[in-house]
Amino acid sequence: MNVRAEMKRSGARASDKTPAAKPQTGAESLLGTLVGAGVEVCFTNPGTSEMHFVTALDTVPQMRGILTLFEGVASGAADGYGRMTGKPASTLLHLGPGLGNAIANFHNARKARTPIVNIVGEHATTHLAYDAPLTADIEAIARPVSRWVRTSQSTGTVAHDAAEAVAAASSLSGGIATLIVPADISWDPSTGPAAPIAPVPPRRVEAAIVDGVARALKGARKAAILGRGPALHGVGLETLGRIAAKTGAVLFGDTFAPRMERGAGRPVVQRMPYFAEDAAAALAVFDVLVIVGTAPPVSFFAYPGKPSFLAAPGCAIHTLASPDEDVVAALTDLADALGAPRKAGKAGRYELAVPGMPTGSLDQAKVGTIVARLLPEGAIVSDECITSGAFTNEVGASAAPHDILWISGGSIGIGLPLATGTAVACPDRKCLCLEGDGSGMYTLQALWTQARERLDVVTVIFANRSYKILHVELGRVGVTARERAGRVLDMDDPMLDWVKMSEGMGVPARRVDTAEDFADVLKAALAQKGPFLIEAVIP
Amino acid sequence: MNVRAEMKRSGARASDKTPAAKPQTGAESLLGTLVGAGVEVCFTNPGTSEMHFVTALDTVPQMRGILTLFEGVASGAADGYGRMTGKPASTLLHLGPGLGNAIANFHNARKARTPIVNIVGEHATTHLAYDAPLTADIEAIARPVSRWVRTSQSTGTVAHDAAEAVAAASSLSGGIATLIVPADISWDPSTGPAAPIAPVPPRRVEAAIVDGVARALKGARKAAILGRGPALHGVGLETLGRIAAKTGAVLFGDTFAPRMERGAGRPVVQRMPYFAEDAAAALAVFDVLVIVGTAPPVSFFAYPGKPSFLAAPGCAIHTLASPDEDVVAALTDLADALGAPRKAGKAGRYELAVPGMPTGSLDQAKVGTIVARLLPEGAIVSDECITSGAFTNEVGASAAPHDILWISGGSIGIGLPLATGTAVACPDRKCLCLEGDGSGMYTLQALWTQARERLDVVTVIFANRSYKILHVELGRVGVTARERAGRVLDMDDPMLDWVKMSEGMGVPARRVDTAEDFADVLKAALAQKGPFLIEAVIP
Repeated sequence: MNVRAEMKRSGARASDKTPAAKPQTGAESLLGTLVGAGVEVCFTNPGTSEMHFVTALDTVPQMRGILTLFEGVASGAADGYGRMTGKPASTLLHLGPGLGNAIANFHNARKARTPIVNIVGEHATTHLAYDAPLTADIEAIARPVSRWVRTSQSTGTVAHDAAEAVAAASSLSGGIATLIVPADISWDPSTGPAAPIAPVPPRRVEAAIVDGVARALKGARKAAILGRGPALHGVGLETLGRIAAKTGAVLFGDTFAPRMERGAGRPVVQRMPYFAEDAAAALAVFDVLVIVGTAPPVSFFAYPGKPSFLAAPGCAIHTLASPDEDVVAALTDLADALGAPRKAGKAGRYELAVPGMPTGSLDQAKVGTIVARLLPEGAIVSDECITSGAFTNEVGASAAPHDILWISGGSIGIGLPLATGTAVACPDRKCLCLEGDGSGMYTLQALWTQARERLDVVTVIFANRSYKILHVELGRVGVTARERAGRVLDMDDPMLDWVKMSEGMGVPARRVDTAEDFADVLKAALAQKGPFLIEAVIP
Repeated sequence: MNVRAEMKRSGARASDKTPAAKPQTGAESLLGTLVGAGVEVCFTNPGTSEMHFVTALDTVPQMRGILTLFEGVASGAADGYGRMTGKPASTLLHLGPGLGNAIANFHNARKARTPIVNIVGEHATTHLAYDAPLTADIEAIARPVSRWVRTSQSTGTVAHDAAEAVAAASSLSGGIATLIVPADISWDPSTGPAAPIAPVPPRRVEAAIVDGVARALKGARKAAILGRGPALHGVGLETLGRIAAKTGAVLFGDTFAPRMERGAGRPVVQRMPYFAEDAAAALAVFDVLVIVGTAPPVSFFAYPGKPSFLAAPGCAIHTLASPDEDVVAALTDLADALGAPRKAGKAGRYELAVPGMPTGSLDQAKVGTIVARLLPEGAIVSDECITSGAFTNEVGASAAPHDILWISGGSIGIGLPLATGTAVACPDRKCLCLEGDGSGMYTLQALWTQARERLDVVTVIFANRSYKILHVELGRVGVTARERAGRVLDMDDPMLDWVKMSEGMGVPARRVDTAEDFADVLKAALAQKGPFLIEAVIP
């Protein structure tokens, strides 16, 4: 994710700050530094050790504080925000356990390379020796998901630490910077905010590499290009389309790309199939595979007796740009080296083409078709419907142009928080969350934040009342589940009532089980502003 | 927690196993080892890498698999189970992110020293090199909450690893042992289960230490004894009562003790106050403080300009037994050294004494009184109602005898899962969960598991529509929140509807706002078997 442009633009706001009448607290200097560096949103679930940060929201009004009722909502929302804006949101979490609750969605954000500034409160430095109940090794908990971890040592350095955290989050392709702030460093007087620090830009790909890839594409019998990150939206995607038009290369995007623009008018980019044998089959015909902003494709899980690596034996793999290299510049250089026309034609682009409106009892395919028919132009789709992928994998690509965001790290429970974050990032675009009933349960608290912030998110729950993917995977790993095993895979006893749960958190909701009802309710939900949930009952 | 007796008893069950017709998988040998060592319950939220463990539930029927819809429910339930039985439950989690979701309640279990065998599935060993989306450093995520971490290296050793995990979880005072099992080690053929390994017993306290404490108690002007762990229930508590009767020492329990027996007939043990100044005031009169199974008292959080250490200056602190020493034996030796009568009298014990039934509009004090009046003998109370502590801190001690379980590590979101685990552990006892509306939201998915397993839990939600404790703490750290800061502390927009959320997960529920209604509904809920939720609306 290229964040430099946004950071530079936002950095100018540092001068908006008015001088404080009395010495700022450490927390105020921290907040002032964040907003000065362009960080304007804080998804939080605070506790006592964060109270000075919280009250600093009153004196640093450029920071929007958004309360979540569970930390996994905060981390997932920050991920969604970062994916859409290219710049970091902050999270404010309470000690080791609060951070622990955020880990699963931070794992997704880490794999998505989303810039996030993660502030974690810590006990006062004087209090740590006593091993009070909440004492934990916060740095150790943070490290597996963070590219940068620091515990502030004084009020004199906390503002500079914050500036470094923003720079670390925004450097190269983006990542999570965790700054741990002891309570006394938040409450003691400070010397005020620090100036923004320039992030390290993505590395430029050498001309020799670009030329090598150009030669490989020209010499290929049949070539494919697999992209991720900036290759799948904006200038990157358009350039990829120009390269495909020039060379005839077939375009793929990673199965769980963080963000992909697609739909009518966009270059045709196939999503790499989830199942290993499907992916291997899709790749079997190519003798050249170019990798842009990702790694060569591997299966999501291993299966007994099946290979993990998916490219065909003998296929030549060329990496144009690794994720920490400048993907857009490399694609531009490659297009130039190939002599691809600046202005792309209509060939190799999706056309608006959606099947007719379905009728009768609902299934996941009909839900997909109806979503594709009704999707507003410019919508942002957070997709975590797992086995209910008709929109995602079939009809969605030729719907109206939209962004689609996937579960980049495979950690379930991202869909609702991600949609929450995209709605904060892009208040003028309709957000749609396609969510499984199993995966939705991990972070259902996101609905409350959507209601509180009046976020424009329509959630569709695919209610099949089981971990259906696990039933599929059972067969794939070569076993069967009888009664006792099946009991830890099904969710039909008791049935979840998503309408009640949603209304319980302030989001109006409806249950539907026919195509006609689903279309009517979805149309109405899309026509209004604000959150709404539809429980689509499917087999 | 002394787990040896239970482990020895359960170990005999290893002989129940019938020889397998075909070679067992690694997962079957693992499960066989667990049940052979007395581990009979598995709280799980599994994924593809755990499918062989799941299907082994069909061939190893002694293990009860209990599905949770969020991993923090599994870890909290295992904690509740272990606190009540003294022996480990197992948890089965999916890779690093699944473990991440369990961390916050594992933090509580770690501080409670609850024995838990935590099994985490990992990618197949051959798959790890490819950095697939779900790949993470599982050992690093596990270490901050685990006393023992191992990744199984082969099907030849996985059963022995499991035996060692049970022993590690059950050694000394108890703790979390994390065994990480790659998928191929689960699915490959094994040589069958391993024999149980004896855990390391808690260390015996030396006679000289006991004699020193006896002398200190005899010579004290005014002595107090602060206990935790086995000192607060069973033989430990009775012995503590005999020591108090003999010496006149005042008894305290840790504010967030994992488990305490109290109520009519039990020795009077005051709960150490939560706020530092109240605790310091309670301790100010003592010249001798004896510590049993815990550490000297410190404040929960630090506050500007206030000390963390709570005992009076000049108070002599004597540690009778650290948590990893044999607390019950040390207390017995101390009682003998003091010549305390074997048979305790009625003095120094709680008598049944609860105020009259309140009427009119509800508040937290009235809820507390009504709970105290209606509490069935032998109930197990999971307490996470934070600022609504009338039952907990005032009227509960002189209610019918019961167990009360606290938030040992201060990590919010334990109450509902803990109650779930106690109900699995003790199906013949009524379980009551006193839960804040804020804290309940972190792990509300526990309600579904209660409904699925028909667990006998009555949940009372104290609905004050804010993080009230944080409003209290704001003043204590010396700041005030204006509108923008207050907005991340209140939950009144939108209002949570706990009745709908509970019904949405299959647990019948009622909302009440008068004392009369609360009494009626609670009485009816206690009279039936199975889960029920009451939303008590309070100011």
